[in-house]
Amino acid sequence: MERITIAHGAGGTIMANMIKNYILKHLGGSSAEVPLEALDDSAVVDGIVLKSDSHAVKPLFFPGGDIGRLAVAGTVNDIAMIGAKPLALTCGMVLEEGLPLTDLDKILGSMEQTCKEAGVYVVTGDTKVIENSGFGGCVINTSGIGKRTAALDHNIAEVKKHRQFSSRWLLDSNLRAGDKLIVSGTVGDHGVTILSAQEGYNFGSNIKSDVTPLNNLTLKLLEVGGIVAMKDPTRGGLSNSLNEWSTKSDVGLMIHELNVPLRGDVKAACEMLGIDPFEIGNEGKVLIGVVPQKAEEVLATLQETKEGKKAAIIGEATDNFSEVVLETVVGGKRIMAPPVGDPIPRIC
Amino acid sequence: MERITIAHGAGGTIMANMIKNYILKHLGGSSAEVPLEALDDSAVVDGIVLKSDSHAVKPLFFPGGDIGRLAVAGTVNDIAMIGAKPLALTCGMVLEEGLPLTDLDKILGSMEQTCKEAGVYVVTGDTKVIENSGFGGCVINTSGIGKRTAALDHNIAEVKKHRQFSSRWLLDSNLRAGDKLIVSGTVGDHGVTILSAQEGYNFGSNIKSDVTPLNNLTLKLLEVGGIVAMKDPTRGGLSNSLNEWSTKSDVGLMIHELNVPLRGDVKAACEMLGIDPFEIGNEGKVLIGVVPQKAEEVLATLQETKEGKKAAIIGEATDNFSEVVLETVVGGKRIMAPPVGDPIPRIC
Repeated sequence: MERITIAHGAGGTIMANMIKNYILKHLGGSSAEVPLEALDDSAVVDGIVLKSDSHAVKPLFFPGGDIGRLAVAGTVNDIAMIGAKPLALTCGMVLEEGLPLTDLDKILGSMEQTCKEAGVYVVTGDTKVIENSGFGGCVINTSGIGKRTAALDHNIAEVKKHRQFSSRWLLDSNLRAGDKLIVSGTVGDHGVTILSAQEGYNFGSNIKSDVTPLNNLTLKLLEVGGIVAMKDPTRGGLSNSLNEWSTKSDVGLMIHELNVPLRGDVKAACEMLGIDPFEIGNEGKVLIGVVPQKAEEVLATLQETKEGKKAAIIGEATDNFSEVVLETVVGGKRIMAPPVGDPIPRIC
Repeated sequence: MERITIAHGAGGTIMANMIKNYILKHLGGSSAEVPLEALDDSAVVDGIVLKSDSHAVKPLFFPGGDIGRLAVAGTVNDIAMIGAKPLALTCGMVLEEGLPLTDLDKILGSMEQTCKEAGVYVVTGDTKVIENSGFGGCVINTSGIGKRTAALDHNIAEVKKHRQFSSRWLLDSNLRAGDKLIVSGTVGDHGVTILSAQEGYNFGSNIKSDVTPLNNLTLKLLEVGGIVAMKDPTRGGLSNSLNEWSTKSDVGLMIHELNVPLRGDVKAACEMLGIDPFEIGNEGKVLIGVVPQKAEEVLATLQETKEGKKAAIIGEATDNFSEVVLETVVGGKRIMAPPVGDPIPRIC
């Protein structure tokens, strides 16, 4: 009998197959403007942007954040990625018998702080308790709604000055040959932080999670304009996000390895552990597709912000091939295949 | 150190205190039309009705339903209770390593079927997997959005023909002295079903869960009109719901025990187990507050439906006292205090 494995939740090809063969087989079928079948960061129904994320990160507290900060930022960011402004959140908690109430208080305090940073509120919720089974203390689902803003309309108008564009939202399927690809900062920080906390590794460094709400940042970028797609490269990392873009947009992506921002200590940790820093999850980073005429301006705006100081143009979309191709540091080229799954379990 | 116990999720006074002392301390504060602080069935923000429910029922499959049916019906019903039409759902699953994929398929098939009955679609979702720890196979969060309909406006216009009414939604705080209380069918069926499945009891009967979406039923009732509040008496049962109404509306409620529909076998099972059938959860039942002039018409409409055949007027709101008072079968009167918590764990 086939059973659920950790890989079914790890954001790679095994998970993608489960979604197709089980979830899409039964659910979906709506006439929503952006439906379940799009498998985009958020859905759009009757003009309302809707997103749901369950968070099962282990441990609950880690350098740079905790499950509360992750839960708020995760859903806020998914709503922001489609180009919308987050309006309100829900909070559905499943608590494990035995969780200290002081931990619950810290988690809720962290949600409060992160909501303040993002400028959103939790407006409804639900709490269930299950018996002590060692599953990790708590899982939190945050769902949220968002709406269209004038900034998104302005952004799309800027795109249309330079090329044809028929989408009303920033979708995975929007990339075309010539678009530039930008990442807002160093990749792999969150994944290495979580793995270190899970396994008790100490890489003699101060690597910490980058988890943060990005909606204020993305709003600034939309005001610059020219952006065709945004995506937060969480489970499966940069590699998974780029492959989703390539497949859904039916376009090749050329990535220049030398240009991808990567901390030296994260790189060293990944080498030591034999994992690919491009396949592990990020939380406070955004991948941006932008028309070439606006790429430098978007980059400059990013680099003026706290979250985007290390932003870089890492590649471009092309019709010369149909895969994601990595031009390596030594000048060779290899296909960056979609990961089977994020190598680090319970990363978010 | 104080720790989370099963009672913190059981829908009674212990849970209410945790919500006040931990959740409301940190979250809320929005200017939403119906905010978190209202602790109503759903929130309303910018005209959008929003609700989130996490489902951790044990076992996953039980007579009359399963976690998939429960997850869809639970959120659809909460949106319906405030008087809205459910528009779309989200599905956030946390799966346990080892869950047979055939079980996942059955659960998703059940969600599909229940969505069809309710006329809604799942438009977005998220799936996480956590290691095998025996927590029960899966928990499902469904969140959803809904909107105002002409039927709700008509319903409120009918209320206003008979008394002052200032609310735009069907809220827990809307009851006034004189309003009649109706329950749509027999109480306690779901709770006794779950307890029997958990403990392997066999009461020699065919008690099964009543879990079902109620939005088509509530729409019919709004078309009759005169309804001031609706609530689905889930965790903590009839007693918890009535006490919430009494407290939030600042009105006494008189309940006639003889009139409360109760199956003989459910009554017998509760007596054998020493639990109060009014304190255990229901899933496919609705408690209705209605102006007295429309009570008989609403009741007659209910009784014509499959779900409402055994509906009954069970009491009325009054200014003569401020609590929930039960007039017992033998004619005595006692205060129906809010339950400390639902006596049956993981009922939904």
